[in-house]
Amino acid sequence: MKQGLLVVISGASGTGKGTVCSALMKEMKGISYSISATTRFPRENERDGVNYYFLSREAFEKMIGEGGFLEWAEVYGNYYGTPLKKIQERLAEGQDILLEIDTQGALKVMEKCPEGVFIFLLPPSLEELERRIRGRGTETEESIIKRLGAARKEIDIGRRYAYVVMNDTVKEAVMRIKAILTAEHCRVELNTEMFEVFEK
Amino acid sequence: MKQGLLVVISGASGTGKGTVCSALMKEMKGISYSISATTRFPRENERDGVNYYFLSREAFEKMIGEGGFLEWAEVYGNYYGTPLKKIQERLAEGQDILLEIDTQGALKVMEKCPEGVFIFLLPPSLEELERRIRGRGTETEESIIKRLGAARKEIDIGRRYAYVVMNDTVKEAVMRIKAILTAEHCRVELNTEMFEVFEK
Repeated sequence: MKQGLLVVISGASGTGKGTVCSALMKEMKGISYSISATTRFPRENERDGVNYYFLSREAFEKMIGEGGFLEWAEVYGNYYGTPLKKIQERLAEGQDILLEIDTQGALKVMEKCPEGVFIFLLPPSLEELERRIRGRGTETEESIIKRLGAARKEIDIGRRYAYVVMNDTVKEAVMRIKAILTAEHCRVELNTEMFEVFEK
Repeated sequence: MKQGLLVVISGASGTGKGTVCSALMKEMKGISYSISATTRFPRENERDGVNYYFLSREAFEKMIGEGGFLEWAEVYGNYYGTPLKKIQERLAEGQDILLEIDTQGALKVMEKCPEGVFIFLLPPSLEELERRIRGRGTETEESIIKRLGAARKEIDIGRRYAYVVMNDTVKEAVMRIKAILTAEHCRVELNTEMFEVFEK
């Protein structure tokens, strides 16, 4: 059984990574989102094991202690994390898993799963990034400047990824990501069984 | 200026790499064949600097001594080699260069240019490989067995390449190679200038 790929996509706020990832999921077979675990309360229509794995704080902290997360973080008093075992099971079944996470989470995944495929999405320009952050129109000048500074810091971390894809248009960005995944599926390490048939 | 890719494609005799490479060249822009140097006499219609760089034995041996070849070999009394400087110039201009060479040549290129993109083409099966080698219909049983054994040895060296592509159909093989080249063009190391615009 050929192992699936752990695909990590990040991008600074304002890059449009949500749109790109949704478009990618629509076009590609054999890839599905990682399901996160969280301690926050389920919203209406959210189902356990579909939208999230809903855990108690105790259960979550126990899993942290057991090294059960690929990465986790506490945000506004709630835990969020990527359960390692579920991902390993699905990869072993040959499924590709998409992790759409921020750079801090991605750095942790790089440590635990260096064989993952790390793709960083860039906005087409600094001006466009600012335009997109401003475009939401809901924030003060101070918070916009803060978000822009944070975005530039995130972009600098992107240098540690394997691949960089510019989100000039969603179509082009998706085409490049699909090419990266096709290429990664052609890696010799993932296809040793292709050589074995010639050795009998 | 973004550096081009040095693309090395090999495959055992009977894999159909010539057909795949020709189809690839027709479909892709920005990639061209490496031009080899040789000491053999030009055939009718062959032009210096187009089909080959035609060199005297003295000139070729002087270039060997100066480390001027990415790889070279002597075949039936004639030298053949890939001139390093010409390739470096074209890569620096942002052109991708395709080297369609055997595994022995490719191993030498791996040493000198580990940043190259090494793609190994496989025939779809051992039976198909044998059928293709037999299909030429010009050889004795003894020479067929010898060629098949040599092909299997070459295929084993393919494990040292980065990518493996099965030539089940030329169309599929070309599609995968194109994806590999698109992906390699997205490598962060080749695109550091994309990050610099966000650092001003």
